[in-house]
Amino acid sequence: MSQAPKTITAAILVIGDEILSGRTKDQNIGFIADYLTAVGIDLKEVRIVADVEEEIVAAVNALRDRYTYLFTTGGIGPTHDDITADSVAKAMGVGIDVDERAVDLLLTRLKREDMNEARLRMCRIPFGAGLILNPISAAPGFRIGNVMVMAGVPRIMQAMLASVVETLETGAKMLSESVEAGLPEGAYAKGLEETDAKYPEVSIGSYPHFNTTGGGFKNQIVLRSKDPQALASARADVEAMLADLKRAQE
Amino acid sequence: MSQAPKTITAAILVIGDEILSGRTKDQNIGFIADYLTAVGIDLKEVRIVADVEEEIVAAVNALRDRYTYLFTTGGIGPTHDDITADSVAKAMGVGIDVDERAVDLLLTRLKREDMNEARLRMCRIPFGAGLILNPISAAPGFRIGNVMVMAGVPRIMQAMLASVVETLETGAKMLSESVEAGLPEGAYAKGLEETDAKYPEVSIGSYPHFNTTGGGFKNQIVLRSKDPQALASARADVEAMLADLKRAQE
Repeated sequence: MSQAPKTITAAILVIGDEILSGRTKDQNIGFIADYLTAVGIDLKEVRIVADVEEEIVAAVNALRDRYTYLFTTGGIGPTHDDITADSVAKAMGVGIDVDERAVDLLLTRLKREDMNEARLRMCRIPFGAGLILNPISAAPGFRIGNVMVMAGVPRIMQAMLASVVETLETGAKMLSESVEAGLPEGAYAKGLEETDAKYPEVSIGSYPHFNTTGGGFKNQIVLRSKDPQALASARADVEAMLADLKRAQE
Repeated sequence: MSQAPKTITAAILVIGDEILSGRTKDQNIGFIADYLTAVGIDLKEVRIVADVEEEIVAAVNALRDRYTYLFTTGGIGPTHDDITADSVAKAMGVGIDVDERAVDLLLTRLKREDMNEARLRMCRIPFGAGLILNPISAAPGFRIGNVMVMAGVPRIMQAMLASVVETLETGAKMLSESVEAGLPEGAYAKGLEETDAKYPEVSIGSYPHFNTTGGGFKNQIVLRSKDPQALASARADVEAMLADLKRAQE
């Protein structure tokens, strides 16, 4: 038997009242989910919490203990509601202060006389953290332990994610196959459950989409596995099962 | 002094591997956030978990204990990966079985001879739950205690949400005002913090947006409160503060 593929897990913590109020629609969760899946990191959980220190601290601690990596987005700007850096330092039990490396980065974009208290707030980095560079607007994110702290603005977050993921350990990539069912879910659910039970290393899901331009529901069966052979066998079984059902209908 | 406005809180639990893998982009969180804000229910937390019973049970219990209402989306279809109803029953400590009211609803769309084991799975409703009608595809959601269990398909979820929210208690509506800053965040952060401290009943945030079509960052200051007078005063203070800063720059 071959060794089980290595599993690296992650969670996302989105920090921001503006997402919870609906004012801003999150664009980061889906992007990070795609990115991590592509590199072989399994996203296991997402939380969205308000700009409230005790909520952030509790969520950081729950998620960093449980998964290989935690990615946070939001709350690292210069205003009073940006409390992520201080909250993460508190969660990790380390101190925090203005970091000269971060000040130097900001000074590549700002005159020294424009450096003020608020901008220095963006330079507060927990002790022992490594910086994550921000090629868009200079103010960096940081990594401390297994926690990656990134900006909330999607374009900046995306640049930070790309640079930090390069430094992380990744596992076996999840492979996936989609099959257009062409039948109602209720018709193939039993056969699909049998296939799912037969291949413990393949995760099989069925996803209905409602087609608003006509045609009603279209169902996709998605098979996911890190084992290409098991995936191909399971897909062949699903296709045979669907073909049998369609023949029986004729 | 007037009485403090009544606060009704909520959380969302999104259930589904397909969101965590990135394959499906969630469209429900932003919609529910907007809807709840509009009716005066404060969304406080969101979690996304996989189709794993123990994860769903733990999240349902954590969130239903903490907030007035919990809304779940996803996992109530007919296939083996649809385990939300059974998981919610387990979390609530109640039994679950095929519910004749749900069967009757499905039979408005299906012939009796097409009712099979998989379709009966969609009729499994925890004991004591009330049904949430599904005008799109008949299979209902349900409400048990303070937990609202809804479909994941956005169009169905939206219809269920509208019908169930009508039956819920709502609080004072959150009012909000936006001010285009016209200045970098670092320039007004100090003044904004002072205004925020002056109005404890107003929550003030600053939100940078990166304008990809030119112009770089545009910052919006958003003020939110249930008290219209405090909101108007705080807005006037913010506008005066910005005007002072702009005059000083000239």
